[in-house]
Amino acid sequence: MGYQEFTIEGRNAVIEAYRAGKPIDKIFILDGCQDGPIMTIKREAKKHDTLIKFVTKERLDQMSETGKHQGVIAYAAAYEYAEVDDILNAAREKGEPPFIFLLDNIEDPHNLGAIIRTANLAGAHGVIIPKNRAAGLTATVARTSAGALNYTPVAKVTNLSKTIEDLKKEGMWFVCADMDGTRMYDLDLKGSIGMVIGNEGEGVSRLVKEKCDFVASIPMKGDIDSLNASVAAGVLAYEIVRQRSL
Amino acid sequence: MGYQEFTIEGRNAVIEAYRAGKPIDKIFILDGCQDGPIMTIKREAKKHDTLIKFVTKERLDQMSETGKHQGVIAYAAAYEYAEVDDILNAAREKGEPPFIFLLDNIEDPHNLGAIIRTANLAGAHGVIIPKNRAAGLTATVARTSAGALNYTPVAKVTNLSKTIEDLKKEGMWFVCADMDGTRMYDLDLKGSIGMVIGNEGEGVSRLVKEKCDFVASIPMKGDIDSLNASVAAGVLAYEIVRQRSL
Repeated sequence: MGYQEFTIEGRNAVIEAYRAGKPIDKIFILDGCQDGPIMTIKREAKKHDTLIKFVTKERLDQMSETGKHQGVIAYAAAYEYAEVDDILNAAREKGEPPFIFLLDNIEDPHNLGAIIRTANLAGAHGVIIPKNRAAGLTATVARTSAGALNYTPVAKVTNLSKTIEDLKKEGMWFVCADMDGTRMYDLDLKGSIGMVIGNEGEGVSRLVKEKCDFVASIPMKGDIDSLNASVAAGVLAYEIVRQRSL
Repeated sequence: MGYQEFTIEGRNAVIEAYRAGKPIDKIFILDGCQDGPIMTIKREAKKHDTLIKFVTKERLDQMSETGKHQGVIAYAAAYEYAEVDDILNAAREKGEPPFIFLLDNIEDPHNLGAIIRTANLAGAHGVIIPKNRAAGLTATVARTSAGALNYTPVAKVTNLSKTIEDLKKEGMWFVCADMDGTRMYDLDLKGSIGMVIGNEGEGVSRLVKEKCDFVASIPMKGDIDSLNASVAAGVLAYEIVRQRSL
């Protein structure tokens, strides 16, 4: 595992990178450029949720390492995803009951990075994210994880509910954070545990929530609705850390 | 108290806003503009840490509400800071021992916003920030606070150590988060408490740390150095919430 950011320059190189399924984070296109290959790149960029920036030729020339950008420079992430089994093995190797973060569609890369950072420090064995919609492991995520992405395995799965079902067969329990649950201090959060954190706006999806054994609530004494997702993940994770240390 | 964002258009209006001490968050300047008033604005912007963006005339025309931007549009925050006494009064009115967040130079506005959001939900009576270097109450902070800035008073003080000294005379205790302290679960964090969170890179400054009664450590089981500042604030704040609820 490991993480590196690199640039891809030139039309064909960028189109090929998309076709090979490389995770492209950001793309710089010469402002006003409308020809066939550029239109193909724009389409691919939209399909893959790449951030597009239109810039001047001077800017591209300045950014270019090869001097042959042909009006397009892409920033790609070179991160290898782990498998769920790698995470279970990591727990086994440490002789600890598995402690896994499951993120039900975290969309903000800053939140994703901060949560991976928290997972590392809270002693979780890995993070599981879904394939669709959610933020992937981009350069921003790597940066905001403050290096944690190099240590904490992140697995990407097609169906989070299905993964929870499979992990239950391995003897794991699942707790999700939501407002209508039991006060987290009153739950028993020891043992082999998966902590599910929901999407920033919508919370945990119904299908995933139904699979969870417990719903944990963080006490809310204020006037607004909810904590920032990465703060909520930290608060619940450290209640789990506290209980595991008792 | 309350928060609003507004734009200021035109050279004189922007220069006057700076002279009146209005908190200007971001400024858009016509690219290539180099005349006297624009140079003055750039100087003021640098002095006040305003984010400067150089944009095209088309962009400014599009942003302009008055049609008379003269090459410059500023985004200002209209937020009234509270006084430390307002925070103590808020606790008194609720009949609760004061619970205050003190931020020793948080620089990232996203962190500041997330921390104010946490302060609101953890039932803290207010947040104290220092005048220098630290992020102020900008539009970004208001947005990331998710509305908490409208409810949780934020006071700005000249000298954080001095404020801690004054508040000790009111019977408050102070705990700061740092790595070389006592495990937070082993401290008694009940009663009238001020929680001090340090700068993102450097942690709590020596002078402030010396004034604190306790140094609390969040258990770190991972490979990297520290949690994101807003996550650390959330984790420690909720340990205080747990102990206050026992």
